[in-house]
Amino acid sequence: MNIQAGIIGVTGYAGSELLRILLRHEGISVRYLGSRRLLSPKPLGELLPSFRGTSALVVRPFRLKEALEACDVLFLALPHGTAMKLVPQIFRKKSIKVVDFSGDFRLASKASFRKAYHLGHCASALLKEAVYGLPEWNREAIRSARLVANPGCYPTAALLALAPLAVAGLLASEGLVVDAKSGLTGAGRSLREDLLFSEVNEDVRAYRVNQHQHMPEMEQELRRMNGRKVQLTFVPHLVPLDRGLYATVYAPLTKALTEKGLRSLYRRAYEKEPFIQLLPEEAWPQAKSVAGSNRCEIGLRLAPGGKRVILLSAIDNLGKGAAGQAVQNMNLLFDLEETQGLLP
Amino acid sequence: MNIQAGIIGVTGYAGSELLRILLRHEGISVRYLGSRRLLSPKPLGELLPSFRGTSALVVRPFRLKEALEACDVLFLALPHGTAMKLVPQIFRKKSIKVVDFSGDFRLASKASFRKAYHLGHCASALLKEAVYGLPEWNREAIRSARLVANPGCYPTAALLALAPLAVAGLLASEGLVVDAKSGLTGAGRSLREDLLFSEVNEDVRAYRVNQHQHMPEMEQELRRMNGRKVQLTFVPHLVPLDRGLYATVYAPLTKALTEKGLRSLYRRAYEKEPFIQLLPEEAWPQAKSVAGSNRCEIGLRLAPGGKRVILLSAIDNLGKGAAGQAVQNMNLLFDLEETQGLLP
Amino acid sequence: MNIQAGIIGVTGYAGSELLRILLRHEGISVRYLGSRRLLSPKPLGELLPSFRGTSALVVRPFRLKEALEACDVLFLALPHGTAMKLVPQIFRKKSIKVVDFSGDFRLASKASFRKAYHLGHCASALLKEAVYGLPEWNREAIRSARLVANPGCYPTAALLALAPLAVAGLLASEGLVVDAKSGLTGAGRSLREDLLFSEVNEDVRAYRVNQHQHMPEMEQELRRMNGRKVQLTFVPHLVPLDRGLYATVYAPLTKALTEKGLRSLYRRAYEKEPFIQLLPEEAWPQAKSVAGSNRCEIGLRLAPGGKRVILLSAIDNLGKGAAGQAVQNMNLLFDLEETQGLLP
Amino acid sequence: MNIQAGIIGVTGYAGSELLRILLRHEGISVRYLGSRRLLSPKPLGELLPSFRGTSALVVRPFRLKEALEACDVLFLALPHGTAMKLVPQIFRKKSIKVVDFSGDFRLASKASFRKAYHLGHCASALLKEAVYGLPEWNREAIRSARLVANPGCYPTAALLALAPLAVAGLLASEGLVVDAKSGLTGAGRSLREDLLFSEVNEDVRAYRVNQHQHMPEMEQELRRMNGRKVQLTFVPHLVPLDRGLYATVYAPLTKALTEKGLRSLYRRAYEKEPFIQLLPEEAWPQAKSVAGSNRCEIGLRLAPGGKRVILLSAIDNLGKGAAGQAVQNMNLLFDLEETQGLLP
Repeated sequence: MNIQAGIIGVTGYAGSELLRILLRHEGISVRYLGSRRLLSPKPLGELLPSFRGTSALVVRPFRLKEALEACDVLFLALPHGTAMKLVPQIFRKKSIKVVDFSGDFRLASKASFRKAYHLGHCASALLKEAVYGLPEWNREAIRSARLVANPGCYPTAALLALAPLAVAGLLASEGLVVDAKSGLTGAGRSLREDLLFSEVNEDVRAYRVNQHQHMPEMEQELRRMNGRKVQLTFVPHLVPLDRGLYATVYAPLTKALTEKGLRSLYRRAYEKEPFIQLLPEEAWPQAKSVAGSNRCEIGLRLAPGGKRVILLSAIDNLGKGAAGQAVQNMNLLFDLEETQGLLP
Repeated sequence: MNIQAGIIGVTGYAGSELLRILLRHEGISVRYLGSRRLLSPKPLGELLPSFRGTSALVVRPFRLKEALEACDVLFLALPHGTAMKLVPQIFRKKSIKVVDFSGDFRLASKASFRKAYHLGHCASALLKEAVYGLPEWNREAIRSARLVANPGCYPTAALLALAPLAVAGLLASEGLVVDAKSGLTGAGRSLREDLLFSEVNEDVRAYRVNQHQHMPEMEQELRRMNGRKVQLTFVPHLVPLDRGLYATVYAPLTKALTEKGLRSLYRRAYEKEPFIQLLPEEAWPQAKSVAGSNRCEIGLRLAPGGKRVILLSAIDNLGKGAAGQAVQNMNLLFDLEETQGLLP
Repeated sequence: MNIQAGIIGVTGYAGSELLRILLRHEGISVRYLGSRRLLSPKPLGELLPSFRGTSALVVRPFRLKEALEACDVLFLALPHGTAMKLVPQIFRKKSIKVVDFSGDFRLASKASFRKAYHLGHCASALLKEAVYGLPEWNREAIRSARLVANPGCYPTAALLALAPLAVAGLLASEGLVVDAKSGLTGAGRSLREDLLFSEVNEDVRAYRVNQHQHMPEMEQELRRMNGRKVQLTFVPHLVPLDRGLYATVYAPLTKALTEKGLRSLYRRAYEKEPFIQLLPEEAWPQAKSVAGSNRCEIGLRLAPGGKRVILLSAIDNLGKGAAGQAVQNMNLLFDLEETQGLLP
Repeated sequence: MNIQAGIIGVTGYAGSELLRILLRHEGISVRYLGSRRLLSPKPLGELLPSFRGTSALVVRPFRLKEALEACDVLFLALPHGTAMKLVPQIFRKKSIKVVDFSGDFRLASKASFRKAYHLGHCASALLKEAVYGLPEWNREAIRSARLVANPGCYPTAALLALAPLAVAGLLASEGLVVDAKSGLTGAGRSLREDLLFSEVNEDVRAYRVNQHQHMPEMEQELRRMNGRKVQLTFVPHLVPLDRGLYATVYAPLTKALTEKGLRSLYRRAYEKEPFIQLLPEEAWPQAKSVAGSNRCEIGLRLAPGGKRVILLSAIDNLGKGAAGQAVQNMNLLFDLEETQGLLP
């Protein structure tokens, strides 16, 4: 029998991409679509033109009771600060699985959360329980979780690139640089003048230079993997495309590697991973080649001397960077085939 | 009386942008337009639709004799490997000024040239004479030059960002990273499948990772400024826009700076420069805000601890990164107002 | 048991989109991929980065013998003038089904073909046999065909918009205008300077004004539907996006309609069609909302007076305009569910 | 001595393009910049990044008194419905010239205005006095005007294409179609969700199908030129680029023309016009080739039979479609060279 799923926040870019995937997923029935912006129920196709004629679903003004009745799993595709209010209510009423897209449950401590989001945490008791949903490096914990914190798009791309080095304890504690380029759906469907077409088109710009809220998330996970603190410099940029997140990572090592040793490290880490594509020498990731998929492409080059690695990592920010990864997590939560419903 | 100018290679993106600027420049008369691709003369507007109806100029199959007769200054907007054959012939026949857009005369030694371009140099006697045309840091030498090597677009953006640190001897010798994002006119008007609209649109991709031919140029100039070797890691990327070059530079320092000290260093370096725009705190460069101009926007942030600087630098790759800078150099060569004909 | 399929011309945009669909189609096994441009076999992912890591398929230099051995159905995604040489050879050797993407078998007469393509037809005996593959209006003939001529992208969008009027005999014989806007994948993966990113980006341009080779195809089918000749004015334009074909049709009628009568005519024609989405009043098609799908969105408005209709029709030029429609045709040829493997 | 100019509404796209042109215009000093959105004065470069470092001008919260003191001419770049309140106040206080960008003074009658804009007109006494600012067809009236109604972008492109036929009385009264494609700056800098980058990028869409407020403006001017009513069908579309307005016009004639007769009609009309570029046979306008200029490119083809003309017309919607044309009008108002400050 199919799993019953609900989405809260379906009108955002991540929420609607999630719905697109779930509608193709044969193990899932979408039973509830909620939006906090609605005052009365509306046909999906009226809110999101790309669903016109493909689905008779209706989006409802969000009410928790309705959502809980219908579903085995709830996806929360809401701005940060919202899920932390909602999840305790959910668990009080029903024991279901929750996959949260926001940053609310990704950081292990109240203090880090406050520092990253400039906001107190109102459900800090759940921070310990929440499981960081990066399946390639946290698969077993996810399987038995109740609350999965779906990783941020920047951390997903950067961590998939860095994890094999970190887990081997090879990351030097200083000098790590992550330079990331994101398409505009990554900025969300927010009504901001600087996101109008004529402001963004034909532009490249950095923002929140070395102060983005995803930095503590990356540092936390790197520390967990590497066994000790890694200091990070991080600059995100907006580039004029819809989908795509490209992370270029400059990683100083604790000891020199050979190109062969480096490749073999990555091959061992990823050769069985269905969604990680390690590219051969002289081939480099392209945002376009992963668009619409749940894949991550990774390219590597050792700098002369062998003590620095350049890592390139491309994902679809709405795919592996949000909705695709959420479905991968859900597949694990319900013991389904991990790749089900996802484009490789 | 006006200076008579000629352009060889006017049909490329840099050549045609140069023409656009020269036609607005009141001290210049464009007397010769040559193309090596033509078999017979053609009206400019037929080759380049944006000149339809704005100019009665004709482009001619390139013949040196014709070019030399007409001109006081020749701009060479040709692929690398071509100018080095042409310039000795030019100087043999007539003592005119030459501004070369290619990499042929930017590197001081035959050996570096061979390493960067995989090609022997056939006019190495001129390498010493050629002057590197970055006016903000080489103004006096340019004024009295005969042959100006117009800098590459990546080096222009990176060097303008780094020079104040380098000249103060503050750049550490290891760990410098330049991550650059270029619009597509930077790749030239070459008939390559990977440059077709549907290949590049909605894509981000790195290329020639840490092996781009502009690396030795940056390293040479940084060494000259910094007083000792600086090892560079450089990754260029293509992003889907026409014009714009964005360099994000991660610079380790030899000693810790304060934010105030850093800003004052840059203010002193650039406050009188008409084309360098130092942005205030929390403002970041935008490729779009320099498009069509000869400006370079620079933004700064010190990383915690004060021993690393993040520098952001945006230019129009066809403006300050090519044709604009060439005109700035020409203004210096002929003792004109340095800003004449250029949009600030 | 699965149907065995082969694609010749898989490296073009239509061919690779077809492969993408067939790989998801559960009734099909892709057994042969050929390209006339190859000299030796190559892994698919090397030729087309978006298939890296998703498929172990190999593309072979095209040889008919190999293709025929492997397959029950061959898709020909080749430039016009090529299929007409190939199809007679195919049928001589093996009785299989052929779906041709080119214009070679769409026109019923040798003379029209010569006029449209400036080329003599070398397999005119097959012109009568070939079936025009517009399923919504030719379903029964397609089911029993051997050779399906997959319609052009412009004719698909225009005919789906016009057919209900034409079949009802309501189209006036003069004054019909089709103004179409196409994304760049519609122009194919041809190495032409005018298709480089920096030529097409930020541009709109008309081409082959009232002389496009798809005009006779539209006129032929309209005549067949309308019962008498319809004179057409047709201007195609290129607009800077990857996928999307938007036809705005201005249709004079033989008699005045009411808005209600018009809508009811279209509702009757399309209410059971899974891929045709008739939009309600005041809603207009969007290229983006059909991208990646096999859908056609149609919007309508009657001009004051009731004797002119404005029809808007949007398809994905690679979907319903090429590969999607080809799969829909194949589903009919093999008695599969018509929607199988296709996104609604 | 220079003319003193002021702009009200400088932060919109048309207003800021106007400022860009005026700053290059040697006969003008910009003395006042006002914005109704501001609460306190702000440096221009903070509001509009592309002016950072190029101008020390300050934008002030709009106060009429300040504006009037400083200026000989005021440009109103405001939404419709605003200028009609402002202009009577201006004229009451000071006799200066006004160029209005909105639709408020383009229609000759109160009734047409109400029909087009769904709003009563509160300064209808000025409707008769206002002069329609299409210099190529209304030059003498503009020279002596006090209030110029700068034409809409769609009417500019369509009327320049149609005027030679209309003035010769050749336009048939029925069947005229204008299909227009506009870049996004044409939609203004309005905070609307449907104008966000990720909504518009990779999309084409029609809007206000046959009900756009520019229709009565086109019909009024065509009637004036043609001598009798011309019924128009008009569909505007948004296409994903910044600047460019492309009108494809399908015009039925009152009598058959030859290609030669048609071209000679257009040549006579436009051969002395500095901003109108009539393209030769088989050459078609490109939005990109007029971007940034005040030019209009026009291409022509007669349909078989000679009784229909296809006209293609491309302008920059911010250039000839708004700010460029406003400056051209201002040049006429003050007896300057008509082309001064404008790129041909």
